[in-house]
Amino acid sequence: MLTSPSDPTVFQRRESEARSYCRGFDAVFAQAAGSELIDAEGNRYIDFLAGCSSLNYGHNDPDMKTALIEHISGDGIAHGLDLHTEVKARFLSAFETHILKPRNMDHRLMFTGPTGANAVEAAIKLARKVTGRTNVISFTNGFHGVTLGALAATGNSYHRGGAGIPLSGVARMPYDGYMGSKVDTADLLEKMLSDPSSGIDAPAAIIFETVQGEGGLNAASPEWVRKVAAIAKAHGALLIIDDVQAGCGRAGSFFSFEDFGVVPDIVTMAKSISGFGLPMALMLVRPEHDKFGPAEHNGTFRGNTHAFVTARISIEKFWADETFQDQLAQKERIILSGLAAISEMVPGARLKGRGLMRGVDVGSGDLAAAICARAFDNGLIIETSGPNDEVVKILAPLTTPDTVLRKGLNILMDAVRDTTTDMKFAAE
Amino acid sequence: MLTSPSDPTVFQRRESEARSYCRGFDAVFAQAAGSELIDAEGNRYIDFLAGCSSLNYGHNDPDMKTALIEHISGDGIAHGLDLHTEVKARFLSAFETHILKPRNMDHRLMFTGPTGANAVEAAIKLARKVTGRTNVISFTNGFHGVTLGALAATGNSYHRGGAGIPLSGVARMPYDGYMGSKVDTADLLEKMLSDPSSGIDAPAAIIFETVQGEGGLNAASPEWVRKVAAIAKAHGALLIIDDVQAGCGRAGSFFSFEDFGVVPDIVTMAKSISGFGLPMALMLVRPEHDKFGPAEHNGTFRGNTHAFVTARISIEKFWADETFQDQLAQKERIILSGLAAISEMVPGARLKGRGLMRGVDVGSGDLAAAICARAFDNGLIIETSGPNDEVVKILAPLTTPDTVLRKGLNILMDAVRDTTTDMKFAAE
Amino acid sequence: MLTSPSDPTVFQRRESEARSYCRGFDAVFAQAAGSELIDAEGNRYIDFLAGCSSLNYGHNDPDMKTALIEHISGDGIAHGLDLHTEVKARFLSAFETHILKPRNMDHRLMFTGPTGANAVEAAIKLARKVTGRTNVISFTNGFHGVTLGALAATGNSYHRGGAGIPLSGVARMPYDGYMGSKVDTADLLEKMLSDPSSGIDAPAAIIFETVQGEGGLNAASPEWVRKVAAIAKAHGALLIIDDVQAGCGRAGSFFSFEDFGVVPDIVTMAKSISGFGLPMALMLVRPEHDKFGPAEHNGTFRGNTHAFVTARISIEKFWADETFQDQLAQKERIILSGLAAISEMVPGARLKGRGLMRGVDVGSGDLAAAICARAFDNGLIIETSGPNDEVVKILAPLTTPDTVLRKGLNILMDAVRDTTTDMKFAAE
Amino acid sequence: MLTSPSDPTVFQRRESEARSYCRGFDAVFAQAAGSELIDAEGNRYIDFLAGCSSLNYGHNDPDMKTALIEHISGDGIAHGLDLHTEVKARFLSAFETHILKPRNMDHRLMFTGPTGANAVEAAIKLARKVTGRTNVISFTNGFHGVTLGALAATGNSYHRGGAGIPLSGVARMPYDGYMGSKVDTADLLEKMLSDPSSGIDAPAAIIFETVQGEGGLNAASPEWVRKVAAIAKAHGALLIIDDVQAGCGRAGSFFSFEDFGVVPDIVTMAKSISGFGLPMALMLVRPEHDKFGPAEHNGTFRGNTHAFVTARISIEKFWADETFQDQLAQKERIILSGLAAISEMVPGARLKGRGLMRGVDVGSGDLAAAICARAFDNGLIIETSGPNDEVVKILAPLTTPDTVLRKGLNILMDAVRDTTTDMKFAAE
Repeated sequence: MLTSPSDPTVFQRRESEARSYCRGFDAVFAQAAGSELIDAEGNRYIDFLAGCSSLNYGHNDPDMKTALIEHISGDGIAHGLDLHTEVKARFLSAFETHILKPRNMDHRLMFTGPTGANAVEAAIKLARKVTGRTNVISFTNGFHGVTLGALAATGNSYHRGGAGIPLSGVARMPYDGYMGSKVDTADLLEKMLSDPSSGIDAPAAIIFETVQGEGGLNAASPEWVRKVAAIAKAHGALLIIDDVQAGCGRAGSFFSFEDFGVVPDIVTMAKSISGFGLPMALMLVRPEHDKFGPAEHNGTFRGNTHAFVTARISIEKFWADETFQDQLAQKERIILSGLAAISEMVPGARLKGRGLMRGVDVGSGDLAAAICARAFDNGLIIETSGPNDEVVKILAPLTTPDTVLRKGLNILMDAVRDTTTDMKFAAE
Repeated sequence: MLTSPSDPTVFQRRESEARSYCRGFDAVFAQAAGSELIDAEGNRYIDFLAGCSSLNYGHNDPDMKTALIEHISGDGIAHGLDLHTEVKARFLSAFETHILKPRNMDHRLMFTGPTGANAVEAAIKLARKVTGRTNVISFTNGFHGVTLGALAATGNSYHRGGAGIPLSGVARMPYDGYMGSKVDTADLLEKMLSDPSSGIDAPAAIIFETVQGEGGLNAASPEWVRKVAAIAKAHGALLIIDDVQAGCGRAGSFFSFEDFGVVPDIVTMAKSISGFGLPMALMLVRPEHDKFGPAEHNGTFRGNTHAFVTARISIEKFWADETFQDQLAQKERIILSGLAAISEMVPGARLKGRGLMRGVDVGSGDLAAAICARAFDNGLIIETSGPNDEVVKILAPLTTPDTVLRKGLNILMDAVRDTTTDMKFAAE
Repeated sequence: MLTSPSDPTVFQRRESEARSYCRGFDAVFAQAAGSELIDAEGNRYIDFLAGCSSLNYGHNDPDMKTALIEHISGDGIAHGLDLHTEVKARFLSAFETHILKPRNMDHRLMFTGPTGANAVEAAIKLARKVTGRTNVISFTNGFHGVTLGALAATGNSYHRGGAGIPLSGVARMPYDGYMGSKVDTADLLEKMLSDPSSGIDAPAAIIFETVQGEGGLNAASPEWVRKVAAIAKAHGALLIIDDVQAGCGRAGSFFSFEDFGVVPDIVTMAKSISGFGLPMALMLVRPEHDKFGPAEHNGTFRGNTHAFVTARISIEKFWADETFQDQLAQKERIILSGLAAISEMVPGARLKGRGLMRGVDVGSGDLAAAICARAFDNGLIIETSGPNDEVVKILAPLTTPDTVLRKGLNILMDAVRDTTTDMKFAAE
Repeated sequence: MLTSPSDPTVFQRRESEARSYCRGFDAVFAQAAGSELIDAEGNRYIDFLAGCSSLNYGHNDPDMKTALIEHISGDGIAHGLDLHTEVKARFLSAFETHILKPRNMDHRLMFTGPTGANAVEAAIKLARKVTGRTNVISFTNGFHGVTLGALAATGNSYHRGGAGIPLSGVARMPYDGYMGSKVDTADLLEKMLSDPSSGIDAPAAIIFETVQGEGGLNAASPEWVRKVAAIAKAHGALLIIDDVQAGCGRAGSFFSFEDFGVVPDIVTMAKSISGFGLPMALMLVRPEHDKFGPAEHNGTFRGNTHAFVTARISIEKFWADETFQDQLAQKERIILSGLAAISEMVPGARLKGRGLMRGVDVGSGDLAAAICARAFDNGLIIETSGPNDEVVKILAPLTTPDTVLRKGLNILMDAVRDTTTDMKFAAE
């Protein structure tokens, strides 16, 4: 059998212009372990991007790796549509035992197509079916994916523009804090939904992220989340929390909302749910709203069997007791301390985020991009977020050893210092 | 570390009502190799479903398996967003060398979210962007996925109903043969597009499958495909061929259209493109239409790194020369011979399909379901297709050994005979 | 009190570019009576346009004129919202007695905003409300108005393009004869509605004109109309016949469909319903579908009181017995005879239409425009119709005396002869 | 010729359930003059509804009446499509001379179909065409008509629900004062339009009424109007002021916005523009945005010729000098004085409105309805407004003599007193 070479010129020649991250991080990556990536030339990079929070447990976690190799070696199912499989049963049991039961959640799991957008599409469709309504409320700076149904709920104009047609079915409301600290935007939502002449149709669902990963690490307060949950209930709308990015420990607990005293009707999960970075997504739904008919929402790759193997390990290893969650608090302190130092270097900088999705708004997308570029030169992979890409965002694996975390933060601090110094010189 | 059990009661308790295939094939599957599945109790089943054509090369192909284990063992990248990776480069090279170049195709590859629906969403969005138009022409009985943009192009009313809102942006035309053999439906399309008062807006794209996998194995004639391609060109629309199910050899050649003398502007692929049943999808697009900006259509799991490993092997192993394709012709003859025998048992039965996506329309969904159920009792996994699920559809792995193929066909023949006999008795 | 002058330069200066008929008929009109218009310079024109069939009883019918002057002189209500008024009661009684009862129609009248488009909007909204469905079937070359809901049902691409957004909620089917004489397009409709995978959603309504006034005077056969009516009933859709242009005697009887053996669920009327050319529209609806709540569809000018006065006279004068309808048959013969002569002058010309909405397809919009322009030079106002404006269309007042009708036809014949002769010379 | 009777039972039998005002004002009206209506039994009613502001100059103004009778008697054109007519030229001249020039407005007039909704449809379509954008910003409690395009901009849920399909293309923002006096809602609009990730697409137009006639007589402040006008300009959106109800003197000047220092790109007018209550609507548009092609937005009744006659008189008689406008200020004082007295009778009552569209929010729709019903019993026609119909609204003809105005206010005061007294007794 032939073996095709790894020729880097092929990207330019044959990969679509839609390619993106590879433009900012211009290397050809070959290996990865824990919090490090290694490129084809042997250069090592600390990873503060973590597959956009798809690698919360780091790259190639040894236990998941072992289990997956064992599964493949033993001719375990690789693709099983939505047939019953042993590995799915085991994942479901682990999720039931270690995630749902301790949190008193009676939700069922629906394995949607293995992307966050697909889970959001399923959630919105289901809410419309259950309520017989069509309108969905989403919020400024929310990001929920780019397929047409999800894209209507997404705020980003660059992505919305890609639709090529007007997006419909979603009414937009200001997120927590959008109008400053003196205005509670939940009050506006309540007023508009209570006003029969507001022009906001009775909603099938209210959907939001508790921390807006792409929208600039805006974190909703627990009070606001509770208020919106109560509004949803009062107005007959399903509450959908999109935990695709903020879930799986990223916000400091398994679900980003679990300390807020709310129980969403629907939760969407993807990114780190497989534990290993494999494509997998699911939707949690309360039994009384589990109203899709068989395959009414379907897709060939719903239920990635390889992912069930690693996802189960991730639950058993990290969420069966409190140990891991306790460690997250410590790592959060380290990150906050580093970001505090950084924010002092940039006049007007503001800390953003919650848990271990943290960042600093440096005031301009150009500055943020320059910082990230310089960090990459020094071996750190880190990205921006926000309406104008003005937030330098840390999404390190949650398993990153403290020493590596500090090392990465030091690279970032140097990058900020050097970039702002350069800019000062350039300005003089 | 704890180990969660494989308790089959968990499916009923915790998996959504949307689960589907598991209802018809009530076993818990544990292993699979080649054309066989094995359940937890050790029962073996011949697989004529093949993950709905996602397993064209069978389960756990040994070469792909070896390569994938080697990749994982060596801490190869598991998740790389759309960064450059060695394994992506190697896949691209293989695809360029063995697929595109021999067919004189200059297309670029865009790795969309790893589902067929996502590739279709990207294709439709891109066509709208490129043309500045919004209307898309799709056809009766077409199936293109169930996320909102793709669902608008899908014909199935059960799936369309799941949207919960009216679907828009797509005009529907009759597929080849829909109005019988005397009416060329391409003429109606041409007339409507040429008539400035027809009410069919100038289209951004014309999208169809050359064989309608879910819609009842309707196969378009080469003449019709060429005519529609010419109409698309004449009217400034992009031609999108959705090869998600019919591609990767299923129709007898790598692309379902490659012998028809048409070169689509966009081709969507998923299902068997990874070779191993792993979630992966891509869109081929001519360079002049490669107009998405960076990440304008995005998604965390675009570019499944594990899938690149197995996808490359599938290309190198099966498509580097003519051997495999030649074998397909022989298997097609075996299937046709079996189906001919079956169709003689059912009054009014009609053969459907092309290449190795073949079936028999038995005239009623109930009969088709009864046949499949009985086949399953005898160790054959096979499913139905068509507007009323009236077509018994064979989607065996393309690598199925002739003996296994014949064995499966024999089980199917017995199932048809027994079912029709039962029905006769019941009727008497 | 000042008196503003009639200064023709004001049109250019202050009237929008959207102005249209005035471009083709460049005169300033001052008076009109019967079938004649008189311009400010005293030139007289025979009117074969009749306000696009809004003046079926001619200009300033003396009986209506007398009644209207009497009403105004006596301080009769000019504007009464939808309050009860004596004149509305009298119109309703006349319509009930002379129109509905003799035709065994139990319909109720809803006075919509006084435009045909508004009646169509109301009809489509009501059908959606009654059925709980959203899809509407309309046909190639149909014209139903240009407000957004009606425009979606209209076929003309020039008008559709004016929407500035994609139009939705309507599926388009080929009208009777669209695919030639050998294909019954009603069969395609039936097949698509019966096929659960056709992609045509279950319709709220099927809407069409029995003669397509703007679309080229295509006349549906009684068989086709009956078949489509039966399909609507079988599939739970409301049958809407848009009689805005073909009604009020234009097609030879009061309703265009009354000899076809069908009773529409909804009929839309406007144009000549006031009798005098005043803005008025209404929707007839069967009592069981009369499901709007009070003012659910509303509009300040619903129920034009002046129009009720003249509309009542038009019913009493023309439709209380058979006399008028019998005269129409005679006028139809005169028109047909004239058109037959004309069609012989133009190679390939085809007669179009039914009743007293007749025309000749001269094969090209340029030729048709040239003919109309020359006719206007000779004192005849006549317009074109059809996808490419290729049909010279006669919409003379139904009350046109035979001598005037013949005089108009003679002018038209001369225009055709001269135009085609000129063209021949030009070509040589 | 037969004469049909005025039989009041016909309404119940033959008029649609959609009839509305006649339910609250259960009489059959026969005549009207000035500010009075007279029913068939000779009862006289003071009219504080004025055809929902369509009769700003009262019923059957003698000068308009004379001119109209003269026009009809002389066989003036009754229906002229959009042909040039003498009466149109004279209206245009009057409008140019007395309305546009003194206000330094260079707008052109487009005669749309003769309903306010049709003018709004045209305005929105044109804004979309001119800008190439699709999104329209409208506001809470706005009312712009009930045809599909206009209805999307309307806030009222009862009317929106009548659509039968989801309404799209409009984003909703809070109107001036909606969030209380401390929040400037224009700031929220500015922030959302400036934020590339807000989810509010770049707008084609911003449309609002300066006083919301149906929405509860909410009056925007001049500052807010100016701010929104500046925001529209800054963001490339057309400013559409819907002056259908507030225009023609209702707000105290010809245009409701003319003292605010803003010049809208588009103004929609209807209701009182004909002067006489006849159906007529128009759109004013700045020449640079006058971009419709000929008949791109059309309609048979665009340009009601009878209405041109009376509309011209209304301009010449009332707007050629300052006299009339000065009188309005005096009448406004009378109304305010009456409403102040009324509001003291109802605990918590709030005055609403501006100019001569004034009312009092009595806190509940039931109370407001009871007040109006009792007023009607005593010979006053008056209606409610607001999201819950909680505002008793005065829309008396602007020409109402002071004595009649006071008489009407006295009836209203008595009705309020009696109703609230009754309620107190009932509560005890």
